[in-house]
Amino acid sequence: MCLKIGIVGSGSVGTYYGAKLAHGGSDVHFLMRGDLSEVQRDGIFVRGEGENFRAAKVNCYNSTNEIGPCDLVIVALKATSNSDLVDLIPPLLHARTMLLTLQNGLGNEEFLAEHFGAERVLGALCFIAVDRHSKTEVERYAYGHVVLGELSHTARQRTREVAAEFSRAKVHCSVTNNLALERWRKLIWNIPFNGLSIVAGRIDTAAIVADKNLRELTIALMNEVITAANKCGHALTNDAWQEHIKRSETMSGYKPSTLQDWEAGKPLEIEAIWGEPVRRAAACGGKMPRTEMIYSLLKKMDQRRALR
Amino acid sequence: MCLKIGIVGSGSVGTYYGAKLAHGGSDVHFLMRGDLSEVQRDGIFVRGEGENFRAAKVNCYNSTNEIGPCDLVIVALKATSNSDLVDLIPPLLHARTMLLTLQNGLGNEEFLAEHFGAERVLGALCFIAVDRHSKTEVERYAYGHVVLGELSHTARQRTREVAAEFSRAKVHCSVTNNLALERWRKLIWNIPFNGLSIVAGRIDTAAIVADKNLRELTIALMNEVITAANKCGHALTNDAWQEHIKRSETMSGYKPSTLQDWEAGKPLEIEAIWGEPVRRAAACGGKMPRTEMIYSLLKKMDQRRALR
Repeated sequence: MCLKIGIVGSGSVGTYYGAKLAHGGSDVHFLMRGDLSEVQRDGIFVRGEGENFRAAKVNCYNSTNEIGPCDLVIVALKATSNSDLVDLIPPLLHARTMLLTLQNGLGNEEFLAEHFGAERVLGALCFIAVDRHSKTEVERYAYGHVVLGELSHTARQRTREVAAEFSRAKVHCSVTNNLALERWRKLIWNIPFNGLSIVAGRIDTAAIVADKNLRELTIALMNEVITAANKCGHALTNDAWQEHIKRSETMSGYKPSTLQDWEAGKPLEIEAIWGEPVRRAAACGGKMPRTEMIYSLLKKMDQRRALR
Repeated sequence: MCLKIGIVGSGSVGTYYGAKLAHGGSDVHFLMRGDLSEVQRDGIFVRGEGENFRAAKVNCYNSTNEIGPCDLVIVALKATSNSDLVDLIPPLLHARTMLLTLQNGLGNEEFLAEHFGAERVLGALCFIAVDRHSKTEVERYAYGHVVLGELSHTARQRTREVAAEFSRAKVHCSVTNNLALERWRKLIWNIPFNGLSIVAGRIDTAAIVADKNLRELTIALMNEVITAANKCGHALTNDAWQEHIKRSETMSGYKPSTLQDWEAGKPLEIEAIWGEPVRRAAACGGKMPRTEMIYSLLKKMDQRRALR
């Protein structure tokens, strides 16, 4: 079986996984905009511990009409650009096209479901520290594994087929029967680290865990996420924060994606990572005061930055 | 009766009230350091709604030894410089010298009491928006009134005498029988506005109340202060936040003192305004999660700024 795969969104995450899949032999087609000619000429260089390769021949296009219908569309745009998908996705669809979002936070599967039908939608959590150095070069600093699931179902045949595609490309990929639970679990890390990396004054994960007060605040935020998830019916255990703090204590200093976005002058995924969790918790009678505070601070900071 | 008054700390607040008292006929003696020669030559200009004067002949000195024993010492240093008082104050003392702190936040009266005896100590809350434009010029933007009380007593004869000194200088001054309660009441304003003015990205009070999320966060912080005060036995009513938010909605945009300090590269009064209230609340079993979060963020931001 070989899936025709479209990649929409070629930031660091889309470029990394797309290049891995292409290098592993999958039939990958990238939508590119500003980067098209460089990538056509040079391909994509991927560096990281245990890997160092060039995906030399990369199929890329500057419109999804040129790509045409795919079996699997991987969505890796910033969540702040989701409205672009309304026009970008339709040319990629046939009756059974799967839409897989690799985006951060909550609400992205639901966005795709609303516009293109819930039946098509899968989501994946990408545990990866990756940076894009140039239009044609990405570097993976840590991890890389993917947890894949269905929006409204437990895993089924097609989920495993997509996972197999990743595995063939040497991406460690596991399948979950409860994507929503895993989304909340990932937020245990993203809500504190992505947020504090900006509101504490543009610092990396190592600086956060090395500061006694910020480390305590990180744990308090993690506990807010766990409590809110439980309120919303997603059963995270009370000690679920421990693995996340340990991960950051052993990882060398890393700039979370939101800090990378800030430094690059890009929009921040504020609604997906902070706004939507706070709203869902509130809808279930849960409170996330510290998370809501990060949300309010980031919104104001982002708005002021945009005005400059 | 005429009190010999020493002023220790000639930032905007010390300079303003000292100049008012001197202009009103009090016997005022300023400790000045870098500003001594300019103030000796030019005096102090005070501007503000309804006032515009020059205190022409200002007694100022570059050591407290030269000032000698006073009846009243007004302390208006930044709380971050309190350790300097250990050496500065003794030459100003006779057996009945009163020490009056105009400083912000909690812990300043206690610091004076610990080093110089509780019996000497008074405190005042200054409701004033004031800025120092140059070494010899202060401008009062709003308010100016003072609430005066004793550290460990209800008001008594000497409290009223000090208040009379302020009143004679046309400073609206009232006396409280419960200084500790009034300190907490003032924190209802300082904890949110001084904090958010920095952590939300260097914005003034008007920008805070104009932003829906930050206005809600301000009210949430105010309620934390009220709840904590009540836990600690200081009876603030549940609606005590309303006057404070109204005050900022009617006042034109103002940079709280902590933002002024930040912009001037001066140390921030983090312990007095956020650290000490959080610790006192915790000691009474109270929680101030949002206040504690501002505390942690400011500490880190201040520390990083100092490293630059």
